[in-house]
Amino acid sequence: MSALYEKHKDTLLKAKQVIKTREEWAAYPEMPSERHYGEGAKQKGEDDFNALLGNKFELKVPMQDADYVTCQSTSPFGIDTTMQFPKLDKKTLLDRSQQAQKQWRRLDAETRFGVCLEVLERLSKKSFLMVHSVMHTTGQPFMMSFQAGGPHALERGLETLAYAANAIESTAPSVQWNKVTGKDKEGNLITVAMDKHFIPRGKGIDVTIGCATFPTWNGYPGIFAALVTGNSVIVKPSDNAILPLAITVDVMREVLQEENINPDVVQLAISNGDNAYTQDILKDKRIKMIDFTGSNAFGDWLKENTNGVQLYLEQAGLNNILIQSTDNFKAMTSNIAFSLSLYSSQMCTAPQNIYIPKNGIETNDGHKSFDDVAQGIATAVEKLLGDDRRAFALMGALNNEGVCKRVNDSAQSDKTFVLAMEKANFEAFPNANTAKPQIIKVDQNDALIYEEQFGPIAYVIETEDADSALTLVCDSIEEYGAMTTALYSVEDDFKQKAIDDIADAGSPLSVNLTGGVYVNQSSAYSDFHGSGLNPAANVSLTDLGFVAPRFGWVTVREQTN
Amino acid sequence: MSALYEKHKDTLLKAKQVIKTREEWAAYPEMPSERHYGEGAKQKGEDDFNALLGNKFELKVPMQDADYVTCQSTSPFGIDTTMQFPKLDKKTLLDRSQQAQKQWRRLDAETRFGVCLEVLERLSKKSFLMVHSVMHTTGQPFMMSFQAGGPHALERGLETLAYAANAIESTAPSVQWNKVTGKDKEGNLITVAMDKHFIPRGKGIDVTIGCATFPTWNGYPGIFAALVTGNSVIVKPSDNAILPLAITVDVMREVLQEENINPDVVQLAISNGDNAYTQDILKDKRIKMIDFTGSNAFGDWLKENTNGVQLYLEQAGLNNILIQSTDNFKAMTSNIAFSLSLYSSQMCTAPQNIYIPKNGIETNDGHKSFDDVAQGIATAVEKLLGDDRRAFALMGALNNEGVCKRVNDSAQSDKTFVLAMEKANFEAFPNANTAKPQIIKVDQNDALIYEEQFGPIAYVIETEDADSALTLVCDSIEEYGAMTTALYSVEDDFKQKAIDDIADAGSPLSVNLTGGVYVNQSSAYSDFHGSGLNPAANVSLTDLGFVAPRFGWVTVREQTN
Repeated sequence: MSALYEKHKDTLLKAKQVIKTREEWAAYPEMPSERHYGEGAKQKGEDDFNALLGNKFELKVPMQDADYVTCQSTSPFGIDTTMQFPKLDKKTLLDRSQQAQKQWRRLDAETRFGVCLEVLERLSKKSFLMVHSVMHTTGQPFMMSFQAGGPHALERGLETLAYAANAIESTAPSVQWNKVTGKDKEGNLITVAMDKHFIPRGKGIDVTIGCATFPTWNGYPGIFAALVTGNSVIVKPSDNAILPLAITVDVMREVLQEENINPDVVQLAISNGDNAYTQDILKDKRIKMIDFTGSNAFGDWLKENTNGVQLYLEQAGLNNILIQSTDNFKAMTSNIAFSLSLYSSQMCTAPQNIYIPKNGIETNDGHKSFDDVAQGIATAVEKLLGDDRRAFALMGALNNEGVCKRVNDSAQSDKTFVLAMEKANFEAFPNANTAKPQIIKVDQNDALIYEEQFGPIAYVIETEDADSALTLVCDSIEEYGAMTTALYSVEDDFKQKAIDDIADAGSPLSVNLTGGVYVNQSSAYSDFHGSGLNPAANVSLTDLGFVAPRFGWVTVREQTN
Repeated sequence: MSALYEKHKDTLLKAKQVIKTREEWAAYPEMPSERHYGEGAKQKGEDDFNALLGNKFELKVPMQDADYVTCQSTSPFGIDTTMQFPKLDKKTLLDRSQQAQKQWRRLDAETRFGVCLEVLERLSKKSFLMVHSVMHTTGQPFMMSFQAGGPHALERGLETLAYAANAIESTAPSVQWNKVTGKDKEGNLITVAMDKHFIPRGKGIDVTIGCATFPTWNGYPGIFAALVTGNSVIVKPSDNAILPLAITVDVMREVLQEENINPDVVQLAISNGDNAYTQDILKDKRIKMIDFTGSNAFGDWLKENTNGVQLYLEQAGLNNILIQSTDNFKAMTSNIAFSLSLYSSQMCTAPQNIYIPKNGIETNDGHKSFDDVAQGIATAVEKLLGDDRRAFALMGALNNEGVCKRVNDSAQSDKTFVLAMEKANFEAFPNANTAKPQIIKVDQNDALIYEEQFGPIAYVIETEDADSALTLVCDSIEEYGAMTTALYSVEDDFKQKAIDDIADAGSPLSVNLTGGVYVNQSSAYSDFHGSGLNPAANVSLTDLGFVAPRFGWVTVREQTN
């Protein structure tokens, strides 16, 4: 048994249990505390990050012959984050990936599991470096950068290992197979005996295309699922969020080399604005699977240009909230306000369209009109973000110029604002791009609400009644996709019908969230992130369907009589 | 619990066990004996078949508004098999499939399993009708038509149900989820409690495109995998092999209707030579998965035109035999002769290219030259097929005009024949299209051997030595794909290296077969048919990767405190 597997197998075993029971569990500490991460960890992480800025990112196990290319970038918080990263030509990158896979696929599964589990542990120890790397590439606030960029991403990685273990262990490694095939002349049974072995083998090369907002959280499932099932991985970060995945690749190559495995099992691909570089790699016939989180435009390009390669896609979606009634109006509006504010609504799970019946709703505070509900949410947002330090902690910064332009254009339009856009002032980062949520009142026929307005723009939508709101929500899920839906209803008949209909439409659903958990949040081992059942994603992160197709079985059978 | 599920659950449980252990097992009797199928079953099956010929195929649960179209066909055995089948316009077909799926996906999983298991049992009872239907559409001999068309196909269907059950049961249906999210002002822990439900849901519509040679065996895995996971299925048979799948659809619709389920969950699509009809259906965006066994040309069309839809493809491959040494020369040549003769080498698993070192091999009968080995195989074929009744029982007939032309053209070429082509005379079917295997001696540089020559054409290939034969075999697998490879070697070092290299190349491998089991044969529950690791197929029939991506999970979570 591999020493690394032995070291970590209890962690894997526990993960295997909880993906079945779906209980709350965590392997990696989610609080950014030196109690978990060791004395001095905070300062060391910050120092390590600052030492990287402006410099070459040197892989501890270099990609030989790579050129260093300068990747210009400015953090969403306004600091210069330009660095140089190693870049290989396409042919060398692909040839080495193929070559490395030939060794990697031959290793026994436990060796691969051991390597992946060790990588997760070492990445966990770098969480205070990762936090700054994620924060200053994505614009996430500090706490989210720590949690979603570090431990929660690692949990998603571990989760895929657990699924992979189940898929591999679903078949016995060998069997003595006997079959009666006839009788001889004396009437004795003739039996054929065979010794059979079943060998799981990775299918080839995976390309994981990182996203700009959650490079590790959305990247780790595909990377670890592909790796542990015997594929090599080319990690192609978003041009705006290279560092978090470069750190990941660095740790992976280090562990691989220590185990005397060809480190080119994992390589970094830097496009640096050269789309043809990425596209040529993706169209190479050695690529057997592609993991992508990002825009519809590029997702559609993949569907049209990769000729039947296995695609694991998360594209754009439109997330809805349906408010029919509540027994805790204040907590509901606070919960929604938090969801609209978190990372400036730049999560794929953030709600955008809030459906409210035009005649209002029943609540614990009596009847509330449409405007009461809309204003209640707006007030809750104002209260939540009124303090700039809290706004900094919750909102973070706008990810890119496109988001800045979109929110500014929207803020200057002649819509009916329930809440006008405001900027926030972050003491530590005066040049950060910020925008508090704007809330716009619209009619259910307004076409704008049916497009994703990525960023802090929300719509409160006047509907005929709750039933028509439900129809609109379901139609929206089926037509535009949804990563999440939230429902507020305390009337049993309506609630059950809404749950059934939204499940039919294929969206993950959160019901009556009033505190502590938010619709944007998806917990590893318990919540399936996406369903694979609507246009927002063709698969969950993570379920068996996300992992099992990444490897095949070779049957070797030998007659033994 | 559904009554049908209760009736059949022990069968499913046993199938779940054996897909893990990979032991020999069968649920449906493979011998065409009235001891298993009841007195009078043989005659009834033949009578039922004869009553269908020349007539309308009436579904017991009709597809309303369908037109009957005349499908001209002649059996490979020479009898007129023209029949009329019901055909719906594309739009109606798709709309009804979508509509039916809305009910089907909502049913609890046990109801769907019950329906599928009952269908398998009823199809088993029709095995003596199926045998003639398969024989006179595909050209398979009687015994193979019975086994591969009936019970063995049903085992493959049941096998997918077992995988689906494992995939669905991998997640608990619900959990009470609790998480400590912080402390209140008094320092007490704050816990959020959530009630979570996990609902498996089919992704939409599956189209299964039947193949001309094994309509049921290759069709059932996809049909049952899609159905049981909550998808509706459109069954599009090959124009030359409609009847076996029409019978299948008939039984399915009957069981669905009896259970008060919309029978349009399963529909028949008859293209009748109209490729646009098929292609337009396949390009509809409601189609979420496509199962196809057949030509590279159409498989490639699917890859290029279906925009990221999940494809389960078995295309052309080149199957090889590598002979390095043997301790039972006579049994080896007999075994190979059988494999070359079975169904006139029209199995996707049939060997074509036989690699033999030019300096010959060591055997239990001493050294054998290349020509000795080639001649040994040829002699074994002549002996096996010398008797016309045995030839009839083993070879069956040539599937279509294309195969007839190919074998005739090859037979008339100026190649070096170790065994020239001969026709067989089938007493019962004087107009059958027949051809015994031709064996052609070639050099390893001959390009022809690197194309699939579907039909009874085999090549004995002179290689420099066994090592170069191994290299050629592995290169062939990686470049052209292979559903099977056979190895004869009794020298441990070579054997182990060959096993490792062929496993690396990604082909299923049979070693030293000398009797009772043939390289063409793949046993449900034990042998993975295809590996998904080389160009011949992108997936196994069947493993978890074949089943799990067909459904997704909806997470419904409700805060309860």
